[in-house]
Amino acid sequence: MTNQITIRAPGTVANLVCGFDILGMALDEPNDIMRMRLLDEPKVVIINRDEFNLPTDPLKNVAGVVLLSIMEKLQNNVGFEVEIEKHIKPGSGIGSSAASAAGAAVGANHLLGNKFTSDEIVQFAMNGEKLASGVKHADNIAPCILGGISLIRSIHPLDIISIPSPDLYVTVVHPQIEVRTSDARQILRKQVLLKDAIRQWGNIAGLVTGFLKNDHALIGRSLEDVIIEPVRSILIPGFDEVKSKCLGAGALGGGISGSGPSVFMLSTTAAIASATEKVMMNVYEGLGIAYNTYVTTINKKGVEIID
Amino acid sequence: MTNQITIRAPGTVANLVCGFDILGMALDEPNDIMRMRLLDEPKVVIINRDEFNLPTDPLKNVAGVVLLSIMEKLQNNVGFEVEIEKHIKPGSGIGSSAASAAGAAVGANHLLGNKFTSDEIVQFAMNGEKLASGVKHADNIAPCILGGISLIRSIHPLDIISIPSPDLYVTVVHPQIEVRTSDARQILRKQVLLKDAIRQWGNIAGLVTGFLKNDHALIGRSLEDVIIEPVRSILIPGFDEVKSKCLGAGALGGGISGSGPSVFMLSTTAAIASATEKVMMNVYEGLGIAYNTYVTTINKKGVEIID
Repeated sequence: MTNQITIRAPGTVANLVCGFDILGMALDEPNDIMRMRLLDEPKVVIINRDEFNLPTDPLKNVAGVVLLSIMEKLQNNVGFEVEIEKHIKPGSGIGSSAASAAGAAVGANHLLGNKFTSDEIVQFAMNGEKLASGVKHADNIAPCILGGISLIRSIHPLDIISIPSPDLYVTVVHPQIEVRTSDARQILRKQVLLKDAIRQWGNIAGLVTGFLKNDHALIGRSLEDVIIEPVRSILIPGFDEVKSKCLGAGALGGGISGSGPSVFMLSTTAAIASATEKVMMNVYEGLGIAYNTYVTTINKKGVEIID
Repeated sequence: MTNQITIRAPGTVANLVCGFDILGMALDEPNDIMRMRLLDEPKVVIINRDEFNLPTDPLKNVAGVVLLSIMEKLQNNVGFEVEIEKHIKPGSGIGSSAASAAGAAVGANHLLGNKFTSDEIVQFAMNGEKLASGVKHADNIAPCILGGISLIRSIHPLDIISIPSPDLYVTVVHPQIEVRTSDARQILRKQVLLKDAIRQWGNIAGLVTGFLKNDHALIGRSLEDVIIEPVRSILIPGFDEVKSKCLGAGALGGGISGSGPSVFMLSTTAAIASATEKVMMNVYEGLGIAYNTYVTTINKKGVEIID
């Protein structure tokens, strides 16, 4: 049993356009680095190696609550020390809390000699999402752990299906404004028109088929969200302009990453992905809003033990 | 150019459980036989070779309106004679009108030397559905023409995607009661809960993934409809009993075929499909309702020119 490990936990895009609450995708960039070590007493020590000032009290820290839930299950005398070097900005909408939660759960499982099943690891990690957003959701957690694209068919009971990921480029822009996950959730209507729901499930079926057949044109046509995006995009300045100009630059399509404020686009080539990035930069320069961009690919490995 | 042909047009299951309005499947049994011949004057002659007394006025006949729409497009002096030997009972919910419409459209195209694209043929055939049900829908037409399983991602613009069909058996029971398509449509709520819509699109994504991966267990888990079935099944006596007993007999799952009253079940083996048929028979014997059953497989060819 290794006593100390280093982990890389990828950023993720949840709510993949028409796949609200059920479809997520892992990114090669950005990602968090975590160093974990087993302790011989039942406590959790959190050490932050970044500028985000996240809580070090394990009960208030996403990685902390995940580790506490594992310790509660184990009922033995081990504990964990976690050093977190976070590169995925909290509140960016690209799975910052999921990376901490999934990294902690996978890392702890590895340190404990792979005691748990994949579903159990997801369940532990969801405790972190519950702390971060008030809701136990798995559409960041699952792709973060498994890599690629994950379908969360159901949460109760947990039913996660890996979807083969197409060879596409991903461009992400994070405009540095705050969109609280709870606000993004409250703004949604509790009821939707049946005709819109039908259009949405036509699109989700098309998107999944496009992924499975690696049919880029079908993926592009299916990247349409008639239910969530029209409501939530109001919270993201520049969204409509970014989207229409990125499509104009040749991107296949995209939308809000998670509950925002990040926006992502899929492209078939590195050149289009870069052109898409320039479009995003121009829009936010024009609006005078600070931003980060990433041009990356779909991460196929999920959380990795790198040392 | 052949002057006379014989056509086989398969029955179809539309509204494939969670795939309401977007997913349909062709059946090897039952099917209609049609003989068609080109006329050198612009008229349509309908001859019925069955006991159903369907209208022979082309304006009131499903095959008739399809052929008239083709003649309107052509603007030349040809016409068609169609002899229809219908085995798919009108009003059964297994695509009787679609078989007439699709058979007529494919047959005419063949007689005309394959003038039209696949999408144009579907568009012509949809005129027949409009006559039969008041709505231009393609989820029977598309699988009837193409065979296998069809995803209708969108009607405007038309976007039909063939989904590889799994090697499954299909059992169908047609309890001989009347459910009018228009009634079945009116009973639906115009609004649905977002949480139900999310569950439905998780299931449709799972079902399509199951078909593409030929993953029978996933297909079974995904054959769940939380939106349409709870409302429409009220119109079908014995539905809940049939469904729960068929699942008990080992069927993967199933639901209402089209807008009913037929009910279908998918099974992995011929033995389970037969056991499922016995369950269906027992339920309707018990209820004193006349019925037909079919034990068949997924038709992979669609409308065929057999002579």
